[in-house]
Amino acid sequence: MTGIDHTHDVALRSWVPEADGHPDFPIQNLPLGMFSVEDGAPRAGVAIGEHILDLPALLVAGLLAGEAARAAEAATGTALNQLLELGAGPRRALRARLSDLLRAGTPERDRVAQLLHGAASCTLHLPATIGDYTDFYVGIHHAENIGRQFRPDNPLLPNYKHVPIGYHGRASSIRPSGVPVRRPRGQAKASDAAAPTFGPSTRLDYELELGVWIGPGNDLGEPIPTGKAPAHVAGFCLLNDWSARDVQAWEYQPLGPFLSKNFASTISPWIITPEALSPFRIAQPPRPEGDPRPLPYLLDEADQAGGAFDLQLDVLLVTPSLREAGLAPHRISASNTRHMYWTVAQMVAHHTCGGCNLRPGDLLGTGTISGPDRDACGSLVEATLGGREPLRLASGEERRFLEDGDEVILRARGVRDGFASIGFGECRAVVLGAVA
Amino acid sequence: MTGIDHTHDVALRSWVPEADGHPDFPIQNLPLGMFSVEDGAPRAGVAIGEHILDLPALLVAGLLAGEAARAAEAATGTALNQLLELGAGPRRALRARLSDLLRAGTPERDRVAQLLHGAASCTLHLPATIGDYTDFYVGIHHAENIGRQFRPDNPLLPNYKHVPIGYHGRASSIRPSGVPVRRPRGQAKASDAAAPTFGPSTRLDYELELGVWIGPGNDLGEPIPTGKAPAHVAGFCLLNDWSARDVQAWEYQPLGPFLSKNFASTISPWIITPEALSPFRIAQPPRPEGDPRPLPYLLDEADQAGGAFDLQLDVLLVTPSLREAGLAPHRISASNTRHMYWTVAQMVAHHTCGGCNLRPGDLLGTGTISGPDRDACGSLVEATLGGREPLRLASGEERRFLEDGDEVILRARGVRDGFASIGFGECRAVVLGAVA
Repeated sequence: MTGIDHTHDVALRSWVPEADGHPDFPIQNLPLGMFSVEDGAPRAGVAIGEHILDLPALLVAGLLAGEAARAAEAATGTALNQLLELGAGPRRALRARLSDLLRAGTPERDRVAQLLHGAASCTLHLPATIGDYTDFYVGIHHAENIGRQFRPDNPLLPNYKHVPIGYHGRASSIRPSGVPVRRPRGQAKASDAAAPTFGPSTRLDYELELGVWIGPGNDLGEPIPTGKAPAHVAGFCLLNDWSARDVQAWEYQPLGPFLSKNFASTISPWIITPEALSPFRIAQPPRPEGDPRPLPYLLDEADQAGGAFDLQLDVLLVTPSLREAGLAPHRISASNTRHMYWTVAQMVAHHTCGGCNLRPGDLLGTGTISGPDRDACGSLVEATLGGREPLRLASGEERRFLEDGDEVILRARGVRDGFASIGFGECRAVVLGAVA
Repeated sequence: MTGIDHTHDVALRSWVPEADGHPDFPIQNLPLGMFSVEDGAPRAGVAIGEHILDLPALLVAGLLAGEAARAAEAATGTALNQLLELGAGPRRALRARLSDLLRAGTPERDRVAQLLHGAASCTLHLPATIGDYTDFYVGIHHAENIGRQFRPDNPLLPNYKHVPIGYHGRASSIRPSGVPVRRPRGQAKASDAAAPTFGPSTRLDYELELGVWIGPGNDLGEPIPTGKAPAHVAGFCLLNDWSARDVQAWEYQPLGPFLSKNFASTISPWIITPEALSPFRIAQPPRPEGDPRPLPYLLDEADQAGGAFDLQLDVLLVTPSLREAGLAPHRISASNTRHMYWTVAQMVAHHTCGGCNLRPGDLLGTGTISGPDRDACGSLVEATLGGREPLRLASGEERRFLEDGDEVILRARGVRDGFASIGFGECRAVVLGAVA
């Protein structure tokens, strides 16, 4: 390792076919995940172009040493939790070595090439065992859009600009991209009905979120200060927090969403590291005039200066008709992570300020990230104003909420002049009809 | 095994000293847990009187066969999840064999006696790795008491009598009885203050709950009907869902409690099996006149006839002055599990009705179980009417909320004519002051 990090150089080229200019996984990304080939057990891998590099095999081949080998040794199990737990040092050493092994001109090309698998023939798994999953609510436009449907004159609740609002979600039902989602059945009550009924949700929705993988944890009773929070973050993913709005409206008082959210959550399976995202860090956008200053435990100078992200977010929809007609996915919305009112470090610090312990492999969601405009909504309930104004698709179809057979695709992408663009890979799932 | 279950016989005696008439662990109970001796690794055990029987050692000694051996084999790891997953068959076989080995007059006495440890010299651990923890709200008097503080004329929200309200809690911060609980710091806002402040909670409270251990799980997308729910329940414990009321009041809108609950939960470490509790099953108490009939997915004849429990619940408080004066713990309240508006089977069926998957070792809490009277409140915020009317203790002290050094003890006990009484063991923890 040298003291200078060349892993982001826009001029860096890879010998792996299709890696250069790959929309998601050029050599500047190098995300970590768990994959399997045919009936084999899940093993750790690194995405590069349309290939996956077998990490344990790289270790066995003797191509890693020192901290990079330590990182790979921690990735020889059936999940990446131990690697996440190691923190930034080994992770960065691994990245530096991987970058060196995969760059054009490396002398190790032939040895490494034998350890690549075509991604198309691999199955991707959850990258880590998720102990606890927490979902936040830091997308302020989402909070306003939702709040406006209930309280037109006062959409944000009084706590919103003081508290990074969050709640606990369900870990057991999180699945990687590609696993279909079954429409849930549940209780709902129409506003004009005397009593609730039980049946398939008629207001099924997606939510566009950024996921945050926790690396090193904290002990119970020992909060993580905002300034130290980045050391506890191991990476990022896309998260679709599927929501049954009719179930949610009836069940959520007074303890919050439950069955309306726990039937499925979909994540993109690659862990995009903080190192890969460093070119896309930005200062926290200034709070609007008149907004309260965050309490001291949420304030850190470095976090204010560079704790936010500029990542383009897209939601695309493929309906059965679009699919049959061979038409492209319809882009429903385009948003950006800069619309987060609180940073990831503030989420971590708030989560632990009362002593709650995070563990390696825990997953945090940001909550839905909507932009200020109608075409930047991170959910259908926002984009259609609660189903009142349907979206019109290129196929001529309308959507108020999701229909059976619809497939939702989330994408995230960092784009910055002078740097190679990288993406998160897709987070997609098709909606299946409810069980009869 | 014979076809007749003698494990409940009130006349059954054990050769283990102090087991007969033990308030918690006579031979009719036989709860399962994880214990360690000195610096040893946690191992599976069975509580009998003031002793713990080493389950893996029993297996190694060749004292188990067939399904009972299969159960013990599943309990040779560092947590009981695999045993819980096996379900009722092996668990019942193990109970029958344990009962036979521990009864007075057994020919195996000498061999088994060598495998007993004095409980006082053992450390108890969480019995299972908790994947997800869900807390319900089925104590209707609690819901009314809390609701009345916000809405005197209409304490219950419209969904309460239709929906077994629940929400996801934090699994990482659940600790076994005896581990101290640190007072959390957090945001709170006085009703007359313009802005929130951050500091130690001044309204720290306990919550008296029954915990439910999930045994065999269900696949994602495959609901568990109410009638089949008992097969998925592996046992019960006490649960203290510590709560910071000031933090809760400020944070809980619109997504529910978060930091106000996730700093600690305490459980009694022994899994009380459904078999041990079978004498204390009762019919679900009739719903008050005018209450809606539950929707069909929550109704099962057998569950209505015997899905509730008659278990005495107690909350005791030890203040530093009581402790110094050598006075007995002060009983704050006496409640009963018959005050649950929904049964455990209804909780399980509701949790999974939208497809959410439960996994072996998941923990469900009932929510606070209060009785209808002031001396049957399962939390201080109820007993003191939100802190307005302090409790007076035998020491002459008053309590509105918990103070540093206070120890809260929860107890549960089944008592029925013609049957041996059994208890859950204690669920206790002392409150430590907040970190400076």
